[in-house]
Amino acid sequence: MSYVRNAWYVAGWSTDLVGAAPLGVHILGERIVLYRGVDGRAIALEDRCVHRLAPLSLGRCEGDNLRCMYHGLLFDPNGTTIEIPGQDMVPNSARVRSYPVVERHSWIWVWMGDKQVADTDLIPPAVGFDDPDYILGHGTLDYEASAGLICDNLLDLSHLSYVHATSFGAGNQWADNQPTVMPLERGVRISRWMTAEPGPRTQTTEPLDRWQSYDFLIPGVLLMFSANYPLGTADRLAKGSPDPDDAISGITFTSQAVTPTKGATARYFFSWGPHVRSGDAALRDQLLEIAQAAFAEDRAIIEGQQRVIDDEPGRQVMPTKADKGVVLYNRLVARLSAEEAAVQV
Amino acid sequence: MSYVRNAWYVAGWSTDLVGAAPLGVHILGERIVLYRGVDGRAIALEDRCVHRLAPLSLGRCEGDNLRCMYHGLLFDPNGTTIEIPGQDMVPNSARVRSYPVVERHSWIWVWMGDKQVADTDLIPPAVGFDDPDYILGHGTLDYEASAGLICDNLLDLSHLSYVHATSFGAGNQWADNQPTVMPLERGVRISRWMTAEPGPRTQTTEPLDRWQSYDFLIPGVLLMFSANYPLGTADRLAKGSPDPDDAISGITFTSQAVTPTKGATARYFFSWGPHVRSGDAALRDQLLEIAQAAFAEDRAIIEGQQRVIDDEPGRQVMPTKADKGVVLYNRLVARLSAEEAAVQV
Amino acid sequence: MSYVRNAWYVAGWSTDLVGAAPLGVHILGERIVLYRGVDGRAIALEDRCVHRLAPLSLGRCEGDNLRCMYHGLLFDPNGTTIEIPGQDMVPNSARVRSYPVVERHSWIWVWMGDKQVADTDLIPPAVGFDDPDYILGHGTLDYEASAGLICDNLLDLSHLSYVHATSFGAGNQWADNQPTVMPLERGVRISRWMTAEPGPRTQTTEPLDRWQSYDFLIPGVLLMFSANYPLGTADRLAKGSPDPDDAISGITFTSQAVTPTKGATARYFFSWGPHVRSGDAALRDQLLEIAQAAFAEDRAIIEGQQRVIDDEPGRQVMPTKADKGVVLYNRLVARLSAEEAAVQV
Repeated sequence: MSYVRNAWYVAGWSTDLVGAAPLGVHILGERIVLYRGVDGRAIALEDRCVHRLAPLSLGRCEGDNLRCMYHGLLFDPNGTTIEIPGQDMVPNSARVRSYPVVERHSWIWVWMGDKQVADTDLIPPAVGFDDPDYILGHGTLDYEASAGLICDNLLDLSHLSYVHATSFGAGNQWADNQPTVMPLERGVRISRWMTAEPGPRTQTTEPLDRWQSYDFLIPGVLLMFSANYPLGTADRLAKGSPDPDDAISGITFTSQAVTPTKGATARYFFSWGPHVRSGDAALRDQLLEIAQAAFAEDRAIIEGQQRVIDDEPGRQVMPTKADKGVVLYNRLVARLSAEEAAVQV
Repeated sequence: MSYVRNAWYVAGWSTDLVGAAPLGVHILGERIVLYRGVDGRAIALEDRCVHRLAPLSLGRCEGDNLRCMYHGLLFDPNGTTIEIPGQDMVPNSARVRSYPVVERHSWIWVWMGDKQVADTDLIPPAVGFDDPDYILGHGTLDYEASAGLICDNLLDLSHLSYVHATSFGAGNQWADNQPTVMPLERGVRISRWMTAEPGPRTQTTEPLDRWQSYDFLIPGVLLMFSANYPLGTADRLAKGSPDPDDAISGITFTSQAVTPTKGATARYFFSWGPHVRSGDAALRDQLLEIAQAAFAEDRAIIEGQQRVIDDEPGRQVMPTKADKGVVLYNRLVARLSAEEAAVQV
Repeated sequence: MSYVRNAWYVAGWSTDLVGAAPLGVHILGERIVLYRGVDGRAIALEDRCVHRLAPLSLGRCEGDNLRCMYHGLLFDPNGTTIEIPGQDMVPNSARVRSYPVVERHSWIWVWMGDKQVADTDLIPPAVGFDDPDYILGHGTLDYEASAGLICDNLLDLSHLSYVHATSFGAGNQWADNQPTVMPLERGVRISRWMTAEPGPRTQTTEPLDRWQSYDFLIPGVLLMFSANYPLGTADRLAKGSPDPDDAISGITFTSQAVTPTKGATARYFFSWGPHVRSGDAALRDQLLEIAQAAFAEDRAIIEGQQRVIDDEPGRQVMPTKADKGVVLYNRLVARLSAEEAAVQV
């Protein structure tokens, strides 16, 4: 699997980093320690002391600095060693890597590439808990499978008709009809109208048109808006995009992020919930329960897929018509990765 | 370890494949999915969808066909993709391998080699639950050890005097005296008389002669008949084979199969029980209990042996006089494997 | 990690080898079986039968000999096969390696190098349970980390100020002041006075001088004496070694041994307790409780360090001033290992 390095990866929920305890995570195989400075801002350093390679995530926060709790070396937010107990001089080389971090939309985002080009405009516009329009629940799943396989899953929702026939109550339309797939500068947009098929259990019982559109963005972030419209809206708009304000029910938003952790493992973050016009905390909880059942189904099939791949790594896939989004997105990843590699040379 | 491919391997008990649920197994490192068609016949396909390599064993039986429950591709019993949801054309290359399967003697046998030479006459004549002469119990054990090590164990019963001194109540005769070992076209026959030592706890208390003879057949199937005869029978027959009908007690039959699953793991299938003339369901249960204790002893020593081998893989064994059956059988495996390899070139 | 082979390694506590059960251990990646002969002496053989490589540690002690309980081969204390059931002749090559063993100071020591130079004078002078001067408790910890990392830990007690700030109640003196480090022929001696800081919770409440000195000896044995002296003693002796008999309280001794087992795993043996002049069984139990908490802290940080190293094996450490003992000792190991390799050529 190749991944884009010049991108903001979700390292965790803001609520994962509380109190004085540092948090160790893996992203793209690198060990990173997150902690908060005195002003509460998140700081990300390489999780490996320069001295004897102990994990700084077992360390202690001291103001804006982080102390290795093996032999006491102290690091500032730039990764510079500012104290070596029992020793007056600190060598210039005594540094660990620091990573640009931004906390936004309830997620902690870490830039994994060249610091010179870290651009906060590239942070995908996820919907966080602070958004007044949505009432969101959230969850985290660890995968024994490559992030790339999870992205493939999210880019081809034809799997809903099979993997989630029960949990999401998804009918055959998902597999039988192709959505509109449109390239974006940093991803793909996948949209579809479903008529007379209400979709997830948020529907009214009367026939209506359901609109669903999501952007899937580098490095693996899904942002999806779904809503019901009066029957006939899809035809009236010639299958074009509706105005969100015209939605009559079933308005929900889900933000999801897939982070490659280490080897063929990944961490999957998701939130989902109704618009304030369209539901309440009770519906949020109901949706989250559905999502958790459904995402467990995804994990079962994707981890199975990973085991098959591990058994015989060289096997080629055979893309189908439903894979348009998968193919477009993976080409984008390949192109951006190649450009990064070219720059590094 | 080398194994013969042109052979019928036990994939499971007939009773392992019930209802509409497909069953995923490994044989010789290959992933195979078993399911039943509308007429109940067992079907075996490569357990890997052509599309995105998901395991078909997580799929759904639909009549004679099997549907991948990731994105809905449908496979017929030949492994041909007959439906790709959302797509009209199916490429000719959209096929998974199918395997010849036969269900016989309560086992599901899968032919792992060249389909052109699949010959049902090569299925070892095990005794199944449908045999009116025997009352059988059965069990299955998973091994963290190579199938070859389990075969070696079964081909040299001198281990009974040590591994099973308690469970089988086996005395020193097993180790001190050599059985008669005779080559067969597809295996070896190992027979012995034991006088005044009744053997497993099926005996009467009076002295008698006990006959035991088994065929160990490619690819790892043991078929053993044991019975007691009046004292003096062994001498009268000059240690030759007795007539089964002359047996007076302790008549049992055991069928055992060792299937290499993946890497250094194996699955071991066994049945055992008395002849209707010589026992009942209560004795069957008693024998099964003894067998389970004994086979756990085998597993402990063989998995220990595997760990020793894994620590230093290059070490040579030193065959002893008791290894005649082991040596003969392994030479046969080596010869047949080499012939297969020659044919493939 | 390189290790010295011509050395006595701790294989276990004397009390680990009781009754007729053989004990299988790994030392330097080699499988060794320990058992006791008729006179109670410990015997160490290669834990791998010559026949089919079964572990002899699953075998049965028979007088001075050990029988493989797979097919019954019998080995004498020299590792010579003296019986093969069912076979009259025993080939000369039917031998397993035997190892020099000495039981001393409550430990079973195995010589892992060239037998010709096995010298019992090289056994470190640990304090065993039979020593009338000390009242000792003991414990064993298995590590998912290289022995070398544990030795590094024990050679640089500046970690006490961080890893054991709570458990041992260690203050900053441990990290801020350097001990005296002196090379020994087979190790290093590390000593220090701490004034007005009583150290582990064995102290009286009045100010005093605390002396602590340990030898860290090939192949990974720590022998440490600690004691309190009247305030001013350190100055009076110009920081030199005090007379043990002048100690007034807090006199303890700890013996610790680190044995490389297999790959990046190790076994850590430790005893600790007060001098009879300075405590009783209750204090011993209290000390052991503290030690177990502290050694769990060591294990957490060292196993974390090992995981960091495993993630990116090539990373260099950056020694600090506190590493003088670590550097001296590791140079000694490197020199002795190189000399052994030169001799083997």
